Amino acid sequence: MKQKLLVLGGGFGGLYAARELRKRFGDSADIQLISEENYFVFQPLLPEVAAGAITEMHAVTSLRELLKKVRLRKATIHSVDFARKVVTVFQGVQRRPTEIAYDHLVVAMGSRIDLSRVPGLEEHALKMKTLEDARRLRAHIIERLEHADVTQLPEVKREALTFVVVGAGFSGIETIGEVKELIDRSLKYYPNIDPSEVRVIAVEFAPRALNELPESLAAYAVRQLKKRGVELMFNTGVASVTGRRLVTSTGETIPTRTIIATIGNAPSPVVLDMGLELTQGRVAVDRFMRAKGHDNVWSLGDCALIPMKENATERNDFAPPTAQFAVREAAQLASNIAATVKGKALKPFQYKSRGALASLGARRGVAEVFGVKLSGYVAWLLWRAYYLSFMPGFDTKLRVFMNWMLDGLRPRSVVALQVPNAQAARYVHYAAGDPVFERGNRSDGFYTVVSGQFEVSYYDEGQGKDITHEVGPGGHFGERMIMGESTRYGTVKAVTDGVVLVLGREEFTKLSSTFDALGSYLEDHLSRVYHVDWHAKKVTEVESSLPKAS
Amino acid sequence: MKQKLLVLGGGFGGLYAARELRKRFGDSADIQLISEENYFVFQPLLPEVAAGAITEMHAVTSLRELLKKVRLRKATIHSVDFARKVVTVFQGVQRRPTEIAYDHLVVAMGSRIDLSRVPGLEEHALKMKTLEDARRLRAHIIERLEHADVTQLPEVKREALTFVVVGAGFSGIETIGEVKELIDRSLKYYPNIDPSEVRVIAVEFAPRALNELPESLAAYAVRQLKKRGVELMFNTGVASVTGRRLVTSTGETIPTRTIIATIGNAPSPVVLDMGLELTQGRVAVDRFMRAKGHDNVWSLGDCALIPMKENATERNDFAPPTAQFAVREAAQLASNIAATVKGKALKPFQYKSRGALASLGARRGVAEVFGVKLSGYVAWLLWRAYYLSFMPGFDTKLRVFMNWMLDGLRPRSVVALQVPNAQAARYVHYAAGDPVFERGNRSDGFYTVVSGQFEVSYYDEGQGKDITHEVGPGGHFGERMIMGESTRYGTVKAVTDGVVLVLGREEFTKLSSTFDALGSYLEDHLSRVYHVDWHAKKVTEVESSLPKAS
Repeated sequence: MKQKLLVLGGGFGGLYAARELRKRFGDSADIQLISEENYFVFQPLLPEVAAGAITEMHAVTSLRELLKKVRLRKATIHSVDFARKVVTVFQGVQRRPTEIAYDHLVVAMGSRIDLSRVPGLEEHALKMKTLEDARRLRAHIIERLEHADVTQLPEVKREALTFVVVGAGFSGIETIGEVKELIDRSLKYYPNIDPSEVRVIAVEFAPRALNELPESLAAYAVRQLKKRGVELMFNTGVASVTGRRLVTSTGETIPTRTIIATIGNAPSPVVLDMGLELTQGRVAVDRFMRAKGHDNVWSLGDCALIPMKENATERNDFAPPTAQFAVREAAQLASNIAATVKGKALKPFQYKSRGALASLGARRGVAEVFGVKLSGYVAWLLWRAYYLSFMPGFDTKLRVFMNWMLDGLRPRSVVALQVPNAQAARYVHYAAGDPVFERGNRSDGFYTVVSGQFEVSYYDEGQGKDITHEVGPGGHFGERMIMGESTRYGTVKAVTDGVVLVLGREEFTKLSSTFDALGSYLEDHLSRVYHVDWHAKKVTEVESSLPKAS
Repeated sequence: MKQKLLVLGGGFGGLYAARELRKRFGDSADIQLISEENYFVFQPLLPEVAAGAITEMHAVTSLRELLKKVRLRKATIHSVDFARKVVTVFQGVQRRPTEIAYDHLVVAMGSRIDLSRVPGLEEHALKMKTLEDARRLRAHIIERLEHADVTQLPEVKREALTFVVVGAGFSGIETIGEVKELIDRSLKYYPNIDPSEVRVIAVEFAPRALNELPESLAAYAVRQLKKRGVELMFNTGVASVTGRRLVTSTGETIPTRTIIATIGNAPSPVVLDMGLELTQGRVAVDRFMRAKGHDNVWSLGDCALIPMKENATERNDFAPPTAQFAVREAAQLASNIAATVKGKALKPFQYKSRGALASLGARRGVAEVFGVKLSGYVAWLLWRAYYLSFMPGFDTKLRVFMNWMLDGLRPRSVVALQVPNAQAARYVHYAAGDPVFERGNRSDGFYTVVSGQFEVSYYDEGQGKDITHEVGPGGHFGERMIMGESTRYGTVKAVTDGVVLVLGREEFTKLSSTFDALGSYLEDHLSRVYHVDWHAKKVTEVESSLPKAS
């Protein structure tokens, strides 16, 4: 019987683990990798994707191309049963569960971003973790420029042109450098925006940037970014966030519609559900990368906490969550699985970092390689050369290289493509006094109150006078859309700080016009609270819009 | 006072109208174009985008790059007031309406696809009209290959590998040729799919393909496609469609999960709302392209029906909805607006087609140019050369050219990017007897019944026995998700043909846990109908998952 080796996750850890297993086992094992997407994302390029230097399609590589002779299964992981040695997945549009048996399991699920500790941050911040995040950020920035170019409202323009990046570590600094370059290169297309109106701000809790690099290089990075007009705020955390502002821990309020969070790592929900022992939110493994309490479950990459010496306690005693380490971990892990199968001795993971590089955008970078410090154009070129060589797959290298050539020679595109946004129902935070919507505004959603108090004002036609009433948790407003209302009849504002759930117009009208109990409740509510009767209209208008069966 | 010239729409008609107006008026007019997207889509390339020959980003051009000295406003058009000469729009995330005044209005809103005449087609077919449609189609095809490669269920594999294109006109033939090429070139990455398992079928109501071209070229195209394994069914319409099958007008049932509709043009909703006189679903204009009954409202491109002679009645008496014509219409229209402003005489639109070209994919094409018929590789090369020269913008030409070079030399990528899908609430058609879901399936949505009868079977713990009951219009099932259920407890199937609305899991659970009236109704319903009580669970689990205000 062939050994069944199953890898969960298609990032650096998972991809390289599968490749290394293939190398060691050849055809003597059945190697399978399960990934939610069928592509590998070269994470270090995400800031360049967000800035449009590289087309989204070109920063990723087909896992099938990279994993010759490894079975790829594009599926969502539902659960893992360690006792039965079975992983349950859902694949494609299929709702039926599929079970996959394993002899050895490699957990390489990376990490996700958790921003829930700061009120409003999870709901209002853009992230920089997945390809979708990078695509969304690029479209979002261009949309803000489009809006700022045409709006007549000074406060809207100011909010649209203020971009805040939370965190000034590697990801934060690279993101802010690229974002600034994108904006600077795009402004020539936006005649109504003056460069002085744009603010790009980094907010960092620590006293300095790029903690992973020597102080002098971090200082160089900060000087470069400042020279290009970036504002950097250190010793500053985020206290709270709404859709239109960020409040810092030092009490400053920054009006903005763009907050990009590069902080807050947490385990993926699937890893949490597995019931493996976690330390600091990462899978606790021994020095051989075996999960605590298991002899056939392994973990590596961002999702594992790998000790690099006995009795590790300090931060530096553990392998850092970088691509450089993940690739080396994969080799040792595959070798340890092979040793286990053959009954040989395992070896602990050991590796010393060769250095670190960061791009600052606009052809500047910082680097420390084998102890040598570099900065400026040379460091930036080295950054590009290093990552090009590191990138797996010839076609990806070729495409990225051609993207870089074109980007160096030609103007950058300001096309804003639509981006997937699973936000048909989204939470929105308001501070006391904030307007929610006003009479005459576009009717774009149905609101239910999660917390706080909201004041609804309108002219009551039944009573022939202006009415004001408050809506609290569990209550709702905006339901007149069920009557086909396309602009708002009333005005709503937040009386206290609060959170609402907004369900999109289309989803709300479809649901309320097909779900009798909800429709009747709303009809009754409109008549009882607002004294409007729309029953006759409903029968003719709503029902004629529903699809007909054959 | 400068003349205010306002163009609605950024397709071929709108883009070229704005450019021609700029040429004729220079700085003496204030020219503005309103478009929902900030890019121009080169429509003839959409089948190649759907097939991955050209990266989505490279088939489009920034409108700002193409419209120097024309003001671009990325906005959604809400309404037009011809009396006040004002267009009302919503821009960016802004909910406040913005009014834009005009002296002359050019309506170039194109057309949209309306499939509502065939039951289920609107809800289940993919379209080929916008860039999003092309992106969605490509991702959809790759997803089907991914699923077919791993599924153990023969009927699921068969459905996943059957691709049906509805319509064998220009768009249908180009789409099917490219789709077939994408699949053929991708199969090497899918070891578990045998080429003989793939079916690509065209269904056409007319007795022949490519009605716009001579019979002999159409016959060549059909021969070529058949040689490559495409099935073509003529004299065949579509009777009905569900998520898993297509039934033809001849009574044949084709099990499939991919239906691509290239038929069914209709006016855009905004044009319908304007109240302009329409003929055959297009704006009725005189030979000068002035909308009937207006002297300062003009229309061109796909959305206008432009007579090319007096008393036009026959199909050939009107300008066809092609890019070639739209570009020439734009020149005449701009010249007529200039003449109107100067009080000079207008000239009717006249143009004779120079020919037509269609690509068949796999380096084959058909063409009729100045009466000369061409087919095969030469016609395909001519197609590429013609469209490359026709494409606006140097950078777009350069990018498309480089895409073509790479695609000719290197394997095509099978990366499936996520695509925007505004389908958090979608209608699904079922035929009598179809399963909706089964016990143990993934719980992925809340169902309300639009029409038909559905049978719900489950084990009732309260009564200790199996129960079956029917749910009809206005009723619902799948609500146990509110209890945190991740897999189905019961089984549902369609008793009659019917339609349901499915609201996504996330949207449903967020809404029902924040909206008290709905939550109470469902709690009561679960206890009354299903005898389950989950109140204690709700308080601890649901409420802890809600976001906290500051």
